[in-house]
Amino acid sequence: MRHEDLATRLAELAVRFGANVQPGQVVSVSSEPGKETLARAVAEAAYRAGARFVDVTTFDVHVKRARLLHADEDTLDYVPPWYGERVLALSREGAAHIALTGPVEPQLLNDLDPARVGRDNLPSIAEWARVVGERTVNWTAVPCPTAQWALLVFPDLDPAAALDRLWEEVARCCRLDEPDPPAAWAARMGRLRRVAGVLNERRFDALHYEGPGTDLTVGLLPTSEWLFAEFSRVDGLRHMPNIPSEEIFTSPDPARADGVIRSTKPLVRAGTLIRDLEVELRGGRVVRVEASSGGEALRATLETDEGAARLGEVALVDSDSRVGALGTVFYDTLLDENAVSHIALGNGFPFAVGANEHERVNRSAIHIDFMVGGDELTVSGVTAAGERVPILVGGRWRI
Amino acid sequence: MRHEDLATRLAELAVRFGANVQPGQVVSVSSEPGKETLARAVAEAAYRAGARFVDVTTFDVHVKRARLLHADEDTLDYVPPWYGERVLALSREGAAHIALTGPVEPQLLNDLDPARVGRDNLPSIAEWARVVGERTVNWTAVPCPTAQWALLVFPDLDPAAALDRLWEEVARCCRLDEPDPPAAWAARMGRLRRVAGVLNERRFDALHYEGPGTDLTVGLLPTSEWLFAEFSRVDGLRHMPNIPSEEIFTSPDPARADGVIRSTKPLVRAGTLIRDLEVELRGGRVVRVEASSGGEALRATLETDEGAARLGEVALVDSDSRVGALGTVFYDTLLDENAVSHIALGNGFPFAVGANEHERVNRSAIHIDFMVGGDELTVSGVTAAGERVPILVGGRWRI
Repeated sequence: MRHEDLATRLAELAVRFGANVQPGQVVSVSSEPGKETLARAVAEAAYRAGARFVDVTTFDVHVKRARLLHADEDTLDYVPPWYGERVLALSREGAAHIALTGPVEPQLLNDLDPARVGRDNLPSIAEWARVVGERTVNWTAVPCPTAQWALLVFPDLDPAAALDRLWEEVARCCRLDEPDPPAAWAARMGRLRRVAGVLNERRFDALHYEGPGTDLTVGLLPTSEWLFAEFSRVDGLRHMPNIPSEEIFTSPDPARADGVIRSTKPLVRAGTLIRDLEVELRGGRVVRVEASSGGEALRATLETDEGAARLGEVALVDSDSRVGALGTVFYDTLLDENAVSHIALGNGFPFAVGANEHERVNRSAIHIDFMVGGDELTVSGVTAAGERVPILVGGRWRI
Repeated sequence: MRHEDLATRLAELAVRFGANVQPGQVVSVSSEPGKETLARAVAEAAYRAGARFVDVTTFDVHVKRARLLHADEDTLDYVPPWYGERVLALSREGAAHIALTGPVEPQLLNDLDPARVGRDNLPSIAEWARVVGERTVNWTAVPCPTAQWALLVFPDLDPAAALDRLWEEVARCCRLDEPDPPAAWAARMGRLRRVAGVLNERRFDALHYEGPGTDLTVGLLPTSEWLFAEFSRVDGLRHMPNIPSEEIFTSPDPARADGVIRSTKPLVRAGTLIRDLEVELRGGRVVRVEASSGGEALRATLETDEGAARLGEVALVDSDSRVGALGTVFYDTLLDENAVSHIALGNGFPFAVGANEHERVNRSAIHIDFMVGGDELTVSGVTAAGERVPILVGGRWRI
């Protein structure tokens, strides 16, 4: 299928099923230069679905590079107040939001001073975390293939072939090759609902991760609830926040995490590539970060605020994941986090715990997922009595 | 010079001289897909000049097309409130603003229903007019060459040659080929300041235009003040609102214009090409419009409102204009209006007359510049006593 046709198909899925855009809604789209084809297809699909207005914002990492090179150090954490006010207005408006992920210029900031890079979190805007927590916006994120991203993922192919291959694999991961992609996603969500249901009945006190270079115990809160990508707004409107999504996840106890965890895939954060990451936590807090590249930038990021060095999310992914089955490293969290099990430093999800424990969930301006799973990982549940129950072994559910 | 180098030079001129960006300022940049090279160069120049933050907004006319094709007719004049709030916040902030002009997709809306197109004024935002009037933002507009615009201007060249040629001519018009472009503009402004000063001392009662097919007298208001592109913010910060700018201009008495005027260049308005335009005015009002093409559309436009058929601006351009010397029709007002003397039907400039006469300046939803100048035009000032004083003869100042 031509890229334009795949973009149209992905846009339809994002609008009709992912964000579940309703007639009369304002639809926010976050894009980047180079993502015009999909952004326009999303706008077209949204207007066809009855959108009142489609508001596309475009973040250019080249402009961020110029800032990091030349702006006064003291100004690097400045965010224009209208960025956050727009997000809060979208929330009041009951708008929809569609994010186009995928690194356009994956290595553009690699040569810069990591301490400076760590001070500028844009395009991440703190108000989005609040609005996501309040569930006032029906949103989704979908990957958008671009030329440079394709060359990062498939460096041995020529540019055209790399972009073809990336589109093909993204289409596979998003189940665009199914006759009825929304139905395929509904079926997959049904299977994850069952697993989440069993875990929610068991109410484990902690998770134990074991694998090469990994031996970590993460405490759960008494009301930590296992969720999957079937969300609803406060008013009940269903939406699927990530396409693809293959995970079940919850927010852990930010005060209890001890051990070492080794990332099994590289990760890209705002233009910085982090490879061979190893993180040690004590009493829930990161005490050591090592990486063969990008470690310094990550260490700087973890000083953003009090919650940046604590866990906000734990997520489990089985081997039915289409992302995992491909074996491709995409350098895009949306895809890579759905390949294998992962954990995230930084902001957690108040909605993933009981109302009485909202305040215990980790809060931060950052949220960084990193992958810890794969066929060599074993995740067990630990009961309050100390009993260990295998949950995920060799990519298969054991419960 | 390579396009990237010309973009760097134009960006420096826009930042350091045009907007006159000050250390610590927030700098707003309005751009479109396809203008990334110049937008990034502007961001780089602004951060080098000490900007606190560069906020690039990108308007995509393809998204507007999707809206015009599919959205409910009732919603077409909706503008998200955060668009205007951002502009007012920039004003409170004392920000700088740099607009990148030039049509990216000059004919993308041509096949759509003009009644629907007319209801959506974006990317124009009403709050900008207020902020420009309040003089709280130091701003400029510069032309940004793009591929499709180049093919519109130079249809006989191949795409690469057309873009080369457009960059070359834009560079020439913006005086980028001078060793010190800001100094060249300062010198040019100095000459226009002298002419405007003389005209402001003389306080002519009217202007008389004479040339082939042209014999028109336009009344001036007692406080009509001749202006040129040397503006200042309320706090006195100098900026140059248009680059290039070759004109001196004011707003005339909308009740006094009699005679016939023949346009010396084709004019494009909303996808309609108007050729060989001849307009007759009586008592300040257009009573006859003839053209070899596009006359019907213009006559319809002049029925928009009461002020549409009266004059809002008179502007004089001498033959030192670099735009005029090239003889190219750019289909971009920023360039074309600076080629030769012109007058505009529709909205006038209250700031170009004394406060006591603000209410006398013409008001309209339209503002259509058309070119009346050239080497065969003579413009004279007419005193209250009826004496005629040559101002501009054969493209040369006579005062």
